[in-house]
Amino acid sequence: MYTRRIAAMRVPATAVSHSRDRNKKALPDPMARLVMKFGGTSVADIDRIRNVARHVQREVAAGNEVAVVVSAMAGKTDELVALCKDASRNYDSREYDAVVATGEQVTAGLLAIVLQDMGIPARSWQGWQVPILTSEAASAARIAQVKGEHILAGFLAGEVAVVAGFQGLHAATGRITTLGRGGSDTSAVAIAAAIKAERCDIYTDVDGIYTTDPRVVPKARRLDRIAFEEILEMASLGAKVMQVRSVELAMMKRVRTYVRSSFDDPADPRPGTLICDEEDIVEQQVVTGIAFSRNEAQITLRRVADRPGVAAAIFMPLAEAHVNVDMIVQVASDDTVTTDITFTVGANDYERALAILEKAKATVGYAALQGAVDVAKVSAIGIGMRSHAGVAALAFKALSEKGINIRAITTSEIKFSILIDAAYTELAVRTLHTLYGLDQV
Amino acid sequence: MYTRRIAAMRVPATAVSHSRDRNKKALPDPMARLVMKFGGTSVADIDRIRNVARHVQREVAAGNEVAVVVSAMAGKTDELVALCKDASRNYDSREYDAVVATGEQVTAGLLAIVLQDMGIPARSWQGWQVPILTSEAASAARIAQVKGEHILAGFLAGEVAVVAGFQGLHAATGRITTLGRGGSDTSAVAIAAAIKAERCDIYTDVDGIYTTDPRVVPKARRLDRIAFEEILEMASLGAKVMQVRSVELAMMKRVRTYVRSSFDDPADPRPGTLICDEEDIVEQQVVTGIAFSRNEAQITLRRVADRPGVAAAIFMPLAEAHVNVDMIVQVASDDTVTTDITFTVGANDYERALAILEKAKATVGYAALQGAVDVAKVSAIGIGMRSHAGVAALAFKALSEKGINIRAITTSEIKFSILIDAAYTELAVRTLHTLYGLDQV
Repeated sequence: MYTRRIAAMRVPATAVSHSRDRNKKALPDPMARLVMKFGGTSVADIDRIRNVARHVQREVAAGNEVAVVVSAMAGKTDELVALCKDASRNYDSREYDAVVATGEQVTAGLLAIVLQDMGIPARSWQGWQVPILTSEAASAARIAQVKGEHILAGFLAGEVAVVAGFQGLHAATGRITTLGRGGSDTSAVAIAAAIKAERCDIYTDVDGIYTTDPRVVPKARRLDRIAFEEILEMASLGAKVMQVRSVELAMMKRVRTYVRSSFDDPADPRPGTLICDEEDIVEQQVVTGIAFSRNEAQITLRRVADRPGVAAAIFMPLAEAHVNVDMIVQVASDDTVTTDITFTVGANDYERALAILEKAKATVGYAALQGAVDVAKVSAIGIGMRSHAGVAALAFKALSEKGINIRAITTSEIKFSILIDAAYTELAVRTLHTLYGLDQV
Repeated sequence: MYTRRIAAMRVPATAVSHSRDRNKKALPDPMARLVMKFGGTSVADIDRIRNVARHVQREVAAGNEVAVVVSAMAGKTDELVALCKDASRNYDSREYDAVVATGEQVTAGLLAIVLQDMGIPARSWQGWQVPILTSEAASAARIAQVKGEHILAGFLAGEVAVVAGFQGLHAATGRITTLGRGGSDTSAVAIAAAIKAERCDIYTDVDGIYTTDPRVVPKARRLDRIAFEEILEMASLGAKVMQVRSVELAMMKRVRTYVRSSFDDPADPRPGTLICDEEDIVEQQVVTGIAFSRNEAQITLRRVADRPGVAAAIFMPLAEAHVNVDMIVQVASDDTVTTDITFTVGANDYERALAILEKAKATVGYAALQGAVDVAKVSAIGIGMRSHAGVAALAFKALSEKGINIRAITTSEIKFSILIDAAYTELAVRTLHTLYGLDQV
């Protein structure tokens, strides 16, 4: 359920035994239409842009029509953001968008130049040129429509389209918008949907999606396929692979999306992980992956009056202060009249949350406010849980056998999360990884 | 005829006695519409952009409607050009334009943010947003039309327009174009013409146009006014003030243009030099300024056959090798049958030009090829020469009295140039500066 960051340009063949690799045959035949998206680290300098061009070259040589979506060169966006912040602490988001969008504009132009230099006809497209039409909300615009005609006309002329990611046009005002951080993934998926691409390849600095963090579990396995729903659950659990909106969009528009490595040998890349519909996963495991987050804090309110409106009295002030609350558990107290409420917040928000709740003591009416920061959340995700009962119960048994105390539990349709002492994180992750048959054989 | 580079943010009042300053009253009354253009050094960082904003603030406070045209932050364009060159030695100029135009886009956004921060409503405009429509010629596009409607609508809403200079849109292809180096001056003048601005202020790192280089002649005087024709002659004579095309455009569209300093105190700036129509200069001097260039080389062909086609045989091969030839002088040789031809080339092209001419010896047919690199060209420019005879003759006399030998002379309607030994450059410039009454009193 995690990704493996790879430092070398090419992982030696011996390091990637793919005994379970079934998705090679899932790659479409030549003469397809596809979108290739490359993030900031993949285009960090001209040499890396040349490497990206070689990936494009391979797909073009195979007879594919290719639209490439690029992010800003690594570090550039931060530089531009810093300039805006220097200019004013309360900068106009619309002007911020105009400034920051230049990062992708530069990469798109440079990649087009490099492609041409390799003899591949190419043209850069900015958001307003495609156009990628968005809502007005500056710095957080949502794509309303991608007009694919110009790109398709370019394909007919044998041209690769190099599209600046992350940006769009609000037609009524004629202004540049940006989609928020990570928005290039969304650009790529939206373009793939608009031009009816057979697939959308998200090239990153990782080689796919893993059953869990390989640094914690050496036996972690790269997944050939993962369902949209599963990857969406992952996002809220600390595993950063793709922007949530891009996955939602891919799911809604049914875009076959691969997460794969731009640092593979362009002549012989690995296929990565396909994000697809549930029904496209033939050998569905009950649990697909184990996610975890150490950055948690637990807060418990003891003996809260069990009356309507009490939850609002607790959680509204937190929401107003932009404290994200997770894993809410409510159980009757031992007096059977009041109730105990436990929830988690980000460790960064812990002190602030306590202060807010102390201020709200009179309106909430609790007996004691308790908390802990050395806690971790471990989650198991799998769409197979829908049809399998007792999946979580197996975990509780296995963890208790290892002497791991469970502080709280929440479950949803396709995942369950447990809160434990942070010291047991690795042990818990490894235990569950083995329990659900995820270890590499 | 030169500019004075000023290091301090403010030149002390004592240093700028304006006994002849007549153009203060030439500034229009408040409630005018104007264009203010700021070059790269004036917007090199956020502090300087803040200083620019204070200049804008002053004009807005005076009730003016203001469009600001900005260049890229100093050094940024070079950085972007280097990226393109790294990407390919034969980069596509259209992609180069897309990359390089981001420099101005960033500055425009940042200045809009800073203005808003000072409480001045402002909006950035890129070339394609205005739009500034251009020809298709990438990297060397010419402005075809500026549509001023959006900017004027912004004025009605009390908004300063911050326009990215140097760039435009080729409508038929929908691509970004750039106007070539220094194109922001042209952007400013074209916008001034389109919105019918009362004046166009070109803010630079110099405080106006001088009768000659103040480093050579301490008594050089800043001109209150200079005619379009005069400044156009200057451009070919080594004095860089404004891009030639921008001056041509200002002349054609009759845009009153000031060259002034962005490093003046924004609360109390000096007016700079007005570039205007000849007839707007009341007290016209015969000579307005003295220009010079040390970067010259002289080539003389002795005893060239005086027959049709010989000039072409000499100058065509040089033109084909992109050697710029200047100051061509032809005189009968002492044998009265053949002719001697003297001309100048840039010192950088000297060796190459000699080699070309040696190769062409058979077709040209000359007796000897001679040359010198330690030569300088000194020119006097003034529209008053049209109506005054004997202006150049005075110079020849004065220079000969100082023992300065004249190697060649060329004249045009409003200027004459002499070629001398480089060692006498300063003496010649000072002599002519005094001769024509240009010394500061």
